[in-house]
Amino acid sequence: MSTSLNAPYHHGNLRQALLEAALIILQKEGEAGLGLRDLARAVGVSPAAPYRHFDSRAALLEALAVTGFQRFAASMEAVAASNPKDPMAAMGRTYVTFALENPNLFRLMFSPQLKKDGRPGLKMAADAAFETLRHVVGGDVGTCRIKALAAWAKVHGLAILLLDSQIALRAGEDREALIAEIVGSL
Amino acid sequence: MSTSLNAPYHHGNLRQALLEAALIILQKEGEAGLGLRDLARAVGVSPAAPYRHFDSRAALLEALAVTGFQRFAASMEAVAASNPKDPMAAMGRTYVTFALENPNLFRLMFSPQLKKDGRPGLKMAADAAFETLRHVVGGDVGTCRIKALAAWAKVHGLAILLLDSQIALRAGEDREALIAEIVGSL
Repeated sequence: MSTSLNAPYHHGNLRQALLEAALIILQKEGEAGLGLRDLARAVGVSPAAPYRHFDSRAALLEALAVTGFQRFAASMEAVAASNPKDPMAAMGRTYVTFALENPNLFRLMFSPQLKKDGRPGLKMAADAAFETLRHVVGGDVGTCRIKALAAWAKVHGLAILLLDSQIALRAGEDREALIAEIVGSL
Repeated sequence: MSTSLNAPYHHGNLRQALLEAALIILQKEGEAGLGLRDLARAVGVSPAAPYRHFDSRAALLEALAVTGFQRFAASMEAVAASNPKDPMAAMGRTYVTFALENPNLFRLMFSPQLKKDGRPGLKMAADAAFETLRHVVGGDVGTCRIKALAAWAKVHGLAILLLDSQIALRAGEDREALIAEIVGSL
């Protein structure tokens, strides 16, 4: 039996289905388009069903941000492992590319409205993403934190400046090449 | 004669008085608190008077962002000149400090809603601020642009991560010292 969007969900996979549908809505319409009732309709369940998994819209947004950080960390880890010669540059490019390909999710993950204090699950997911970076930076613990924060600031800034259209490309300039050059100058 | 906020303005200084009052409102209340009528009241002129200088609220916001970039560039230039041993680090600290001290103005200056394309005055002011950075980076024109963009990305990212409460300070850690260390690792 195929699991079409309108098929009934077994207990245990509705949460995941809601998250996947919410990620699609977030990508297409932005955070403003995300309500638990719209989400129920998109997944084909009763309006009350999402509340079994998410107390509130804020809880849904938090779960989306957690999912975002998990995928973000996984893709940075994967790319670092497959680029042993320069894992930092590979991670940096992946960081910026993730932001440009998932702008609404990226902004949600780093939204000041979604404070990490008081949301231990989100804080853990965000810290784990930073840890993948810190692990690749290596070195001793003290200077390592500063170096990792500096590398983070640089790729985060580049992502935001590009997302916010602050860096004007020159005629014929390739965005990917520019990202690689800037990230490579770490 | 003193020029109190309620004194009549000579032709020619009302624009500046409106901008100064608008900067204060922006700092205190954020962009949402800024309307041309509120501004007229704050400065003590007729509701129509601001329209002699700003066509619309958008024109006022643009003029504020231009003023922001001019002051930003001037303070970066001044600090670079007075720190000849490491002008880059001094500019970087000034960049981040400006953002933290003027969060609403900083966000307005880099707002994607206030597109620099089609606003030549704003584009010129923003480009001039970037030029102060590029000038200090030095070197030849090609690699100089990449190095300047990389330095910009780093200080911009650090400013945004701090403004958005994404970097958690450790117990007893001093924010200024952390900024200096991260910027110094350029």
